[in-house]
Amino acid sequence: MGTGRLEAFSDGVIAVAITLLVLGIAVPRPSAHPLAHDLLKQWPQYAAYVVSFMTIGIIWINHHAMLGRLREADHSILILNLLLLMTIGLLPFATALMAEYLRHSGESLAAAVYAGCFLLMATAFSTLNRHLLIDRAHLLRSELPLEERRFILHRAAVGVVPYAVATPLAFVSPYLTLGICAALDLYYALPRATGYRGSVSRP
Amino acid sequence: MGTGRLEAFSDGVIAVAITLLVLGIAVPRPSAHPLAHDLLKQWPQYAAYVVSFMTIGIIWINHHAMLGRLREADHSILILNLLLLMTIGLLPFATALMAEYLRHSGESLAAAVYAGCFLLMATAFSTLNRHLLIDRAHLLRSELPLEERRFILHRAAVGVVPYAVATPLAFVSPYLTLGICAALDLYYALPRATGYRGSVSRP
Amino acid sequence: MGTGRLEAFSDGVIAVAITLLVLGIAVPRPSAHPLAHDLLKQWPQYAAYVVSFMTIGIIWINHHAMLGRLREADHSILILNLLLLMTIGLLPFATALMAEYLRHSGESLAAAVYAGCFLLMATAFSTLNRHLLIDRAHLLRSELPLEERRFILHRAAVGVVPYAVATPLAFVSPYLTLGICAALDLYYALPRATGYRGSVSRP
Amino acid sequence: MGTGRLEAFSDGVIAVAITLLVLGIAVPRPSAHPLAHDLLKQWPQYAAYVVSFMTIGIIWINHHAMLGRLREADHSILILNLLLLMTIGLLPFATALMAEYLRHSGESLAAAVYAGCFLLMATAFSTLNRHLLIDRAHLLRSELPLEERRFILHRAAVGVVPYAVATPLAFVSPYLTLGICAALDLYYALPRATGYRGSVSRP
Repeated sequence: MGTGRLEAFSDGVIAVAITLLVLGIAVPRPSAHPLAHDLLKQWPQYAAYVVSFMTIGIIWINHHAMLGRLREADHSILILNLLLLMTIGLLPFATALMAEYLRHSGESLAAAVYAGCFLLMATAFSTLNRHLLIDRAHLLRSELPLEERRFILHRAAVGVVPYAVATPLAFVSPYLTLGICAALDLYYALPRATGYRGSVSRP
Repeated sequence: MGTGRLEAFSDGVIAVAITLLVLGIAVPRPSAHPLAHDLLKQWPQYAAYVVSFMTIGIIWINHHAMLGRLREADHSILILNLLLLMTIGLLPFATALMAEYLRHSGESLAAAVYAGCFLLMATAFSTLNRHLLIDRAHLLRSELPLEERRFILHRAAVGVVPYAVATPLAFVSPYLTLGICAALDLYYALPRATGYRGSVSRP
Repeated sequence: MGTGRLEAFSDGVIAVAITLLVLGIAVPRPSAHPLAHDLLKQWPQYAAYVVSFMTIGIIWINHHAMLGRLREADHSILILNLLLLMTIGLLPFATALMAEYLRHSGESLAAAVYAGCFLLMATAFSTLNRHLLIDRAHLLRSELPLEERRFILHRAAVGVVPYAVATPLAFVSPYLTLGICAALDLYYALPRATGYRGSVSRP
Repeated sequence: MGTGRLEAFSDGVIAVAITLLVLGIAVPRPSAHPLAHDLLKQWPQYAAYVVSFMTIGIIWINHHAMLGRLREADHSILILNLLLLMTIGLLPFATALMAEYLRHSGESLAAAVYAGCFLLMATAFSTLNRHLLIDRAHLLRSELPLEERRFILHRAAVGVVPYAVATPLAFVSPYLTLGICAALDLYYALPRATGYRGSVSRP
């Protein structure tokens, strides 16, 4: 089948997931403290919102580039894409978990689950990318030389590494984990990074 | 009317429903137990998320194939499609119910409601499919031989059977019911299954 | 501007609103009663879900037909469409309110708010329709004779009446109000009703 | 890349955010007061819903006009658009916060956060607009004279001012802040305002 409705459905799921992140920011219940205190105290919720929003947004950009190479999709592509969307759909939970437990007992595990979900997502992305570029190369829009396809794959595989590092590091410091995830967003967002542009034409 | 906006609306509803599933995974409240214990204890929520996500995803793939055969839609198709979407929209509730009650009193009924909602969905799908292929054959994109239409219908009807079996089996064991639903997902996800590909060209 | 993105945005809002209805169906908290009792006791939630889902679905069908007549949109159309979407966006609240209070003190007011929100929606729809067909007739795709435009308008205006009746009747019986809303859905869903088909070609 | 999927994704996020606003309207819990009393008491929730819905709706109209000028998007445009969507995604939280605290201790800060989020959104919008019209003028569909681009930019920059005023004024009166936000919506919604139409052809 063509990729139009596949893109539309993926866009829909990613758009809903990214917008549901706001449900992780709680309206503070009236307390003995002034509201300013209560709002400041929940800063992990804002930090987690920003980091997760940017991460999902960047995966959307990359997803767009990945499907843009495709002429049509078959059953195996649909299923692997579904698995990728399933990991993205988990992020509102992982984000809320991290925000809730940071600065409390259990924060290490919560941060590990958080980065672990990003790791799952990056792995699913990389798997789908490999499937498209190697196993389903005949479904691509234009023939890419094997060398170029390997370059793209290599870069996507490299994207998994920081999360694989950040996940166990949560047991050293959950703040370090959050910092790595934030730094990655910044890296991808910067103009010169190997973001969307780079994934189309090799420098 | 053309099928473009019908597909867009259906995609929207299915994408929202599949993404709302995550609201069924609760952030554990701080308790006397370590977080790891609380997270592990709610494994039915993860299992239900995965099974429901894949089931809705597979129905989306099949829905795509079904509407892809259609040239234009009339009032009766819109209404039957709406009924199908209504059953899909129920699944976040059914999923949360099952996840909440598994391992507690009431688990049999909760699992029966869960599989029962899948049964409703599969029945609505099969009804719409029959309506398109038999009653509205003149609205199809290309003329399909009656024999081929019957083959497609037969397969869709067969898809109802496992849920019709899994629903009452919940009162024997809710785990069995969940297992059947999971096995069905696996069956449809496997490359060789009669999934999307099969519904376009007969083997 | 063209109507493509206007349709896409409207579809998005309507699809999210219709799917959020499920949040009005609560997973019963564990109680002293068996789960079957608790699930049955909340039947107003299921009834309200079905009635609201079908009502929003039918307004979507009619919205589709309305915008389908339009060649391009101007500022006033965008704003009136936004007001219509604002009334549709309220329905998950009105539905949950009605379902929560039916069979309890306050049920009459809750049902009046419920039908009153449908009344608001039907009025906004009718207003936008009149604006398109009378004030912005030069933006229609094809010239419709004034007589035919009046026929369409008249029918849309008639659609407001049942809700204008059902709203105050809530203080006689909230069940009557719910029944009228359900009967309207049934009427529009039936094959021969003046639904989508009728709004394109006059019988 | 083309702007089609960028528009689709933005529409999705904005449509979900605008529809999630309804979650800020609570179904009153049964209390000793009659339901009418409880429903009336939460009027700030309705006011905040209407003001936020119209504000997001108008930003959508303007976003549409802005992207409509664009022929294709590059990495920097995608990232700045993502930042804009991130501020829009915050609004369901800011709206619920304002509605919850109005008429209670903390209302000034809550209203300041509310208008402050609109300020953030207007700033992100203006930044993206400047980037498109000045830095990425070569990606526009048609060459606009510099003078006209400056006119559009100037008007977008002016749109930031009222929120910059309304935010600190919350500490004088949160009602004044809400009133300014509502007046702005009204201004943009009125037929003669410099809304969508004005942003295409200069008067």
